[in-house]
Amino acid sequence: MSKNTVETSTKTSENKLWGGRFAEDTDAFVEAFTASIMFDKRLANQDIQGSEAHAEMLHKVGVLNAQELADIQQGLAAIRKDAAEGKVEWSIALEDVHMNIEARLTDRIGIAGKKLHTGRSRNDQIATDIRLWLREQVDFIAGEITRLQQGLVELAEREAHTILPGFTHLQVAQPITFGHHMMAWYEMLERDYERLLDCRKRINVMPLGSAALAGTSYPIDREFTSQLLSFDRPSRNSLDGVSDRDFAIEFTSVASVIMMHLSRFSEELVLWTSAQFDFINLPDRFCTGSSIMPQKKNPDVPELVRGKTGRVYGSLISLMTLMKSQPLAYNKDNQEDKEPLFDTVDTLIGSLRSFADMMPYVETKPESMRRAAMQGFATATDLADYLVVKGMPFRDAHEVVGKAVAFGVETKQDLSEMTLEELKQFSDVITEDVFDVLTLEGSVAARNHIGGTAPEQVLLQVAVAKASLAAR
Amino acid sequence: MSKNTVETSTKTSENKLWGGRFAEDTDAFVEAFTASIMFDKRLANQDIQGSEAHAEMLHKVGVLNAQELADIQQGLAAIRKDAAEGKVEWSIALEDVHMNIEARLTDRIGIAGKKLHTGRSRNDQIATDIRLWLREQVDFIAGEITRLQQGLVELAEREAHTILPGFTHLQVAQPITFGHHMMAWYEMLERDYERLLDCRKRINVMPLGSAALAGTSYPIDREFTSQLLSFDRPSRNSLDGVSDRDFAIEFTSVASVIMMHLSRFSEELVLWTSAQFDFINLPDRFCTGSSIMPQKKNPDVPELVRGKTGRVYGSLISLMTLMKSQPLAYNKDNQEDKEPLFDTVDTLIGSLRSFADMMPYVETKPESMRRAAMQGFATATDLADYLVVKGMPFRDAHEVVGKAVAFGVETKQDLSEMTLEELKQFSDVITEDVFDVLTLEGSVAARNHIGGTAPEQVLLQVAVAKASLAAR
Amino acid sequence: MSKNTVETSTKTSENKLWGGRFAEDTDAFVEAFTASIMFDKRLANQDIQGSEAHAEMLHKVGVLNAQELADIQQGLAAIRKDAAEGKVEWSIALEDVHMNIEARLTDRIGIAGKKLHTGRSRNDQIATDIRLWLREQVDFIAGEITRLQQGLVELAEREAHTILPGFTHLQVAQPITFGHHMMAWYEMLERDYERLLDCRKRINVMPLGSAALAGTSYPIDREFTSQLLSFDRPSRNSLDGVSDRDFAIEFTSVASVIMMHLSRFSEELVLWTSAQFDFINLPDRFCTGSSIMPQKKNPDVPELVRGKTGRVYGSLISLMTLMKSQPLAYNKDNQEDKEPLFDTVDTLIGSLRSFADMMPYVETKPESMRRAAMQGFATATDLADYLVVKGMPFRDAHEVVGKAVAFGVETKQDLSEMTLEELKQFSDVITEDVFDVLTLEGSVAARNHIGGTAPEQVLLQVAVAKASLAAR
Amino acid sequence: MSKNTVETSTKTSENKLWGGRFAEDTDAFVEAFTASIMFDKRLANQDIQGSEAHAEMLHKVGVLNAQELADIQQGLAAIRKDAAEGKVEWSIALEDVHMNIEARLTDRIGIAGKKLHTGRSRNDQIATDIRLWLREQVDFIAGEITRLQQGLVELAEREAHTILPGFTHLQVAQPITFGHHMMAWYEMLERDYERLLDCRKRINVMPLGSAALAGTSYPIDREFTSQLLSFDRPSRNSLDGVSDRDFAIEFTSVASVIMMHLSRFSEELVLWTSAQFDFINLPDRFCTGSSIMPQKKNPDVPELVRGKTGRVYGSLISLMTLMKSQPLAYNKDNQEDKEPLFDTVDTLIGSLRSFADMMPYVETKPESMRRAAMQGFATATDLADYLVVKGMPFRDAHEVVGKAVAFGVETKQDLSEMTLEELKQFSDVITEDVFDVLTLEGSVAARNHIGGTAPEQVLLQVAVAKASLAAR
Repeated sequence: MSKNTVETSTKTSENKLWGGRFAEDTDAFVEAFTASIMFDKRLANQDIQGSEAHAEMLHKVGVLNAQELADIQQGLAAIRKDAAEGKVEWSIALEDVHMNIEARLTDRIGIAGKKLHTGRSRNDQIATDIRLWLREQVDFIAGEITRLQQGLVELAEREAHTILPGFTHLQVAQPITFGHHMMAWYEMLERDYERLLDCRKRINVMPLGSAALAGTSYPIDREFTSQLLSFDRPSRNSLDGVSDRDFAIEFTSVASVIMMHLSRFSEELVLWTSAQFDFINLPDRFCTGSSIMPQKKNPDVPELVRGKTGRVYGSLISLMTLMKSQPLAYNKDNQEDKEPLFDTVDTLIGSLRSFADMMPYVETKPESMRRAAMQGFATATDLADYLVVKGMPFRDAHEVVGKAVAFGVETKQDLSEMTLEELKQFSDVITEDVFDVLTLEGSVAARNHIGGTAPEQVLLQVAVAKASLAAR
Repeated sequence: MSKNTVETSTKTSENKLWGGRFAEDTDAFVEAFTASIMFDKRLANQDIQGSEAHAEMLHKVGVLNAQELADIQQGLAAIRKDAAEGKVEWSIALEDVHMNIEARLTDRIGIAGKKLHTGRSRNDQIATDIRLWLREQVDFIAGEITRLQQGLVELAEREAHTILPGFTHLQVAQPITFGHHMMAWYEMLERDYERLLDCRKRINVMPLGSAALAGTSYPIDREFTSQLLSFDRPSRNSLDGVSDRDFAIEFTSVASVIMMHLSRFSEELVLWTSAQFDFINLPDRFCTGSSIMPQKKNPDVPELVRGKTGRVYGSLISLMTLMKSQPLAYNKDNQEDKEPLFDTVDTLIGSLRSFADMMPYVETKPESMRRAAMQGFATATDLADYLVVKGMPFRDAHEVVGKAVAFGVETKQDLSEMTLEELKQFSDVITEDVFDVLTLEGSVAARNHIGGTAPEQVLLQVAVAKASLAAR
Repeated sequence: MSKNTVETSTKTSENKLWGGRFAEDTDAFVEAFTASIMFDKRLANQDIQGSEAHAEMLHKVGVLNAQELADIQQGLAAIRKDAAEGKVEWSIALEDVHMNIEARLTDRIGIAGKKLHTGRSRNDQIATDIRLWLREQVDFIAGEITRLQQGLVELAEREAHTILPGFTHLQVAQPITFGHHMMAWYEMLERDYERLLDCRKRINVMPLGSAALAGTSYPIDREFTSQLLSFDRPSRNSLDGVSDRDFAIEFTSVASVIMMHLSRFSEELVLWTSAQFDFINLPDRFCTGSSIMPQKKNPDVPELVRGKTGRVYGSLISLMTLMKSQPLAYNKDNQEDKEPLFDTVDTLIGSLRSFADMMPYVETKPESMRRAAMQGFATATDLADYLVVKGMPFRDAHEVVGKAVAFGVETKQDLSEMTLEELKQFSDVITEDVFDVLTLEGSVAARNHIGGTAPEQVLLQVAVAKASLAAR
Repeated sequence: MSKNTVETSTKTSENKLWGGRFAEDTDAFVEAFTASIMFDKRLANQDIQGSEAHAEMLHKVGVLNAQELADIQQGLAAIRKDAAEGKVEWSIALEDVHMNIEARLTDRIGIAGKKLHTGRSRNDQIATDIRLWLREQVDFIAGEITRLQQGLVELAEREAHTILPGFTHLQVAQPITFGHHMMAWYEMLERDYERLLDCRKRINVMPLGSAALAGTSYPIDREFTSQLLSFDRPSRNSLDGVSDRDFAIEFTSVASVIMMHLSRFSEELVLWTSAQFDFINLPDRFCTGSSIMPQKKNPDVPELVRGKTGRVYGSLISLMTLMKSQPLAYNKDNQEDKEPLFDTVDTLIGSLRSFADMMPYVETKPESMRRAAMQGFATATDLADYLVVKGMPFRDAHEVVGKAVAFGVETKQDLSEMTLEELKQFSDVITEDVFDVLTLEGSVAARNHIGGTAPEQVLLQVAVAKASLAAR
């Protein structure tokens, strides 16, 4: 069984580890169509890791003797090394990463290799491998989120006093600070981080020992294996253990929300780099040009990340569709769980990385943002609030200001550009001090409560965020 | 402004609370198309609850005097009562639940009503209303999950020793116990419960005080309001506060997984009630008949719940699509967040309730299940394990058993029906004691480790579950 | 059976038309949970229409005599009238629209009513009702698409010479004409229209006569019924006839693409009405204001339509999930096909209508668009093309222009604002005539081929479009 | 520029065909993250095909001279050959398939290569490449559908008289013929085929000549290019031409429905091969075994295809999400259109192929199916119809039969097993001839109308199908 090749198979059914019952060879196309080695080879390390722990446990409970354990350990170590060096020729005839590794092991160490599969099944093995792999990825992703959050916090601190127009309905609403805006993004990622850790709890449960579906008649010690593999605990039901893919769906849901957030950041970055907004500049190295229009500098990274959102949403739907109506325990359908998960992890890591790399180098254009904030009657609410403080009910003040704005639209001037007389025609409670509240600085400084856009509040949240990040 | 009607509007723009700036009335179709009162009236109670807390806070910080507060409180109480009694005529011209209630309030108590909107906006108001409402629903749903889990645990205990065939690939695999199967379902719901509570943490944050997007210039006390409304804390960023709909997506993700689980239960219930499986009986009251085929008794409830899975998946996609690429802070798109959420809650509650009502009355058919378990060579793995214990490597044992099964298929007999001589032709290590492991009882009893199908283990998990449920 | 109420049921099982076999009444909650009358009453007209044709056919083949037919016709006509006048009290105990109408009919005309269900089943009846209903809706939707297209064509004609910047990556790319942009939207709708008609072919097939799943033993004449109901033909396989919901999925796919298109239009309308772009003005009646910011005029209709896109995507996923893995023939799951379909139709019609109403009133702001087109080096490609015409390979020309643009960025001037000397420093083939190609008018006029942005081409496509619309 | 490597790039920005404007090199990670060559190299053939037609057109309109055209043709032919032989080293620094091929061409033939990009852009080039590629795939897929349909028709003909129980709600409903069931599947595929051809019309439109977004100032002849590439016509609007991805969404929708159908076939094949149903046998070569349970023969192919359904649904969501709210004309997001499309095509072809290969070898088990049809009172409807023919209203007959069935359930006998006396207790119109209609053969033969399950009708539809397939 030594000369496997990746692409073709001339093997008879005897090579299949499960071939005893079958009278007819697998059709060559079917063999390739149903094999998973093309993608699950990515789990080779985790498969070996799981096998090592399983072997150690089998030795502890007396199924393997010391020599057999040593042989297995040494054989697996050699295969891990081969795999790392790209020396393994994965065989489609051997279907998947488990049978490839086991065949290679038996080839190398003989009979002890055949004993390794005692008390387990590919059903619990694959479930264990994926969880081990995903746990690693989650930890890496958490790190990338943290890195991006750090970049945002620094940017927020730097630009805590920079004023830009805040939008609702993409219409200028009220002046806000750039730091405040960055901290809004930070908050989204904070929830993403929390969700990821919540999800990790449910990933970190060990199905190994569930065997095919019902557990095994060998006296296995699942607590021991679980500790060896740093799982929180073994799963509590073998049927559930082999069929549960909740963790993959939950992770992909978490990833979908992260991508949704990145799509929102992207949308704003694309808007802000347009000539029409012109609020920021992205470094050239995160942009590309056009093959036909020499003047173009396109914000490729945010656009691409925005586009990749759909990819992760799609994977979520794939996984949810996959699991819908599946009877217990394991069905071949579940082979389809890996590619959407792998793709989601890769997409997420690439997207987070590019944002974490890029955000610290975003350059703001304060004059341009200020100019935009001066348009659009951004301080209209402040005028209304001013009137309320002077004793007018809010709804009446709202109406007064509405008329002043209509006048401003007609005469093409901002509220702060009107004369006192002009303002007074809408309400005679308006006096000279109105101009204090109509400045941009006055407006943002006044929103000085938890969550408000005042620079003081932004810097407070920056401090909270720094402490939170430092504590991770 | 006293005569609102639900269907039509002859109001001029002056009736719109925001009409000051506008020269032209809203088109009648547009008015109905963009209004939300048809569905957000469902939030009336929460809207009033939020307004009461807001008013109390405004009084605390000096914006409202004692009389104004008292008027508002009394006015809101009256509206709550009217709404409960179905006496409110909601007006499309007043767009949404907030403006309907405010108009009604002002109508009733005059000028103080106009002051209530001080320091808030519909943007933070709606975000607060939804969270208050969803928090209640989550608590109710958690109760229904618990109730269903209780039913499963009781059924599991009752049927801990009942044997049925366990399936993989819908092929008979190994004998399992019915209690074990029920506890697999229990475990799925246990994760659902955990996810729901994790989600609740992120629901229970108060956006009120974020105002339109930037906070407000009034000296509001958000900690105070947050405590009045039993939120964990106020949100930390006003832009995020008004635009965050993560909690709706996360809740719908959690709901999607619950429905996915129910679809799996349903699939098995449908299979089990078919004449072909005939494992259980569902009470007549959960079934319906056919208008043309008089003999039919259809498992309508599980079928319908299975069908409703798609509905919740669809709502998840709706919400994720909704939020994709939305720039900060609030956009009208977000009005579309409510109906998918409402529908998801209703679907989930109906589905959980029908299962929680039904499961305690499921009748098992032990003879029929036992007969099925005797077919399909369900103890083949036990034979392999027997051979391994006798010293044969697992892979070789697997092959020996494969040949015995092929012989059984040919001669139409189960392994336990073969003679010792017949069995011995495949391996001479087989002796008389083989028949102990080939019984169904022997097979299930042998899987006696954490998560295994042995009745002893099932009862152990039942005890764990009971303790866990009792501790809620 | 005369006093049905919508909300409650105290009926014994004898009232259920299929109750003969059952020993136990339907649980009250289950009854409501599994009933469909709350939403399928919308199909009452179609149900009656189908029954009339079915009755006429039954008479033709001798199952009903002339008197029975007359009784049924008169009874159904009366029910139709009652339903139109809102006089029907739909009963949840009678489950669905079919049984409600049949019970009412029998109540009214006695024994002949009981004969109407001969040779059919609710399975083929509901499939027929939905198709009849959807066919009507499709025809209405096609009309709304046409109306929107007409508005776009007129706008395109009016603004065939109006220049605005064309964008790629939301960066100014090349000058285009507003008419050209409108005709791009027209083309999208043209494909939508085609897809809708293609879908209609597959809707317009009659399942009636498939009975429960296998056809019927009565000598029915399906061709006759099909002609009475204006179907193209009866379905060719009864199992498929009762279980096919492809048409609902296909329709919802078509609707999803239409909504996707509208979301793209919406995105651009929202951008164009922002202060930053300021390309167009939307009439006040398609906008709303803010409860807190008196100056706001929000483009609610496009925002809301953009938000509704997710709703239709969600319904598509619902339906696809619903049908996944359903075994033949009919399952209760299929009851869930109606609400997503109804909601999709309503959403689509509302969205198309609001756009068809709004587009003719869009006001362009030519100066503002022109100003934007002058920024961003929109004619850089024209300079490159100029150099190519002068003999330079395109890739070299691209590089030359790239350098000129870099110089323009540095010196803050557009290409057309540079002196000949400044331009010549990048290539000495540049002469005085370069300024012809650097004008906006020169640029758009030059793109004068099928599909190009030149006003001449736009007007050509307008003519083609008008002819196409007129031919519908 | 001759030594490109796939993995790394040490190129300065001068190597980028659009580098003139840029001051800073692309970040290495960003370069890889934003490149598409890893997957769009699959379009190399189509890219060359498009370039050949474009060059020929450029020569026709005088932009290229005869020598330049000859050079380009020879250069492209050489690259096609290299690509076919795997000799091309694709470079990430050159981003995509277009720039890789163009660079290689220029490298080989010099200045003429630089002229090839005249009058086009990567935006219209990629849109053209995908359409050329997808058109080929659609034609291949249509062939595989046809092949599967042929297999079903043959099976239907062979088994036109084989009786099995028809199910609704997975409860035995009425006897049907196996051929009828196969023809239901055939009908689904017939619609799929139609939809695919309808979709093909919209794929087969040529965007080439749209250039970046606005067309080009060169005197291109798009009709000519369109004919060279066998497109039906050039697109009518350049903005739409570069941004339209409807065809990808429509194709993926069509593919989703095909996969949904295959998931339904799969579900039934899985059920039918279970020990509980035992209706058919699948050849060993379409099944695999278990690594732990030696007796298993798992229906892997249908299970896997069922699982792959989610994959295609996911791709549809990816594409729809991708396009949602994209402003015109081209955005980098669109780079994400290819992988979901490629994966959908591959999944679809693999799934169709495995079914087309497998279905002709399905072996039915007529005795087992017959036995199942005898259970479950499958002829109850026939008894009702019998009573109706004897003059009883259908609803009354339904009730009579319901009581007979209840008696049968109690006495454990089928209707056909009751004595005449037993039957007569429910209605005295029953006479000896009742037993004719209670046989399975009598039941199916009676359903003898268009679409009915009678063998005669099945054979009629087989003939129709054969003619239809032959006419393709």
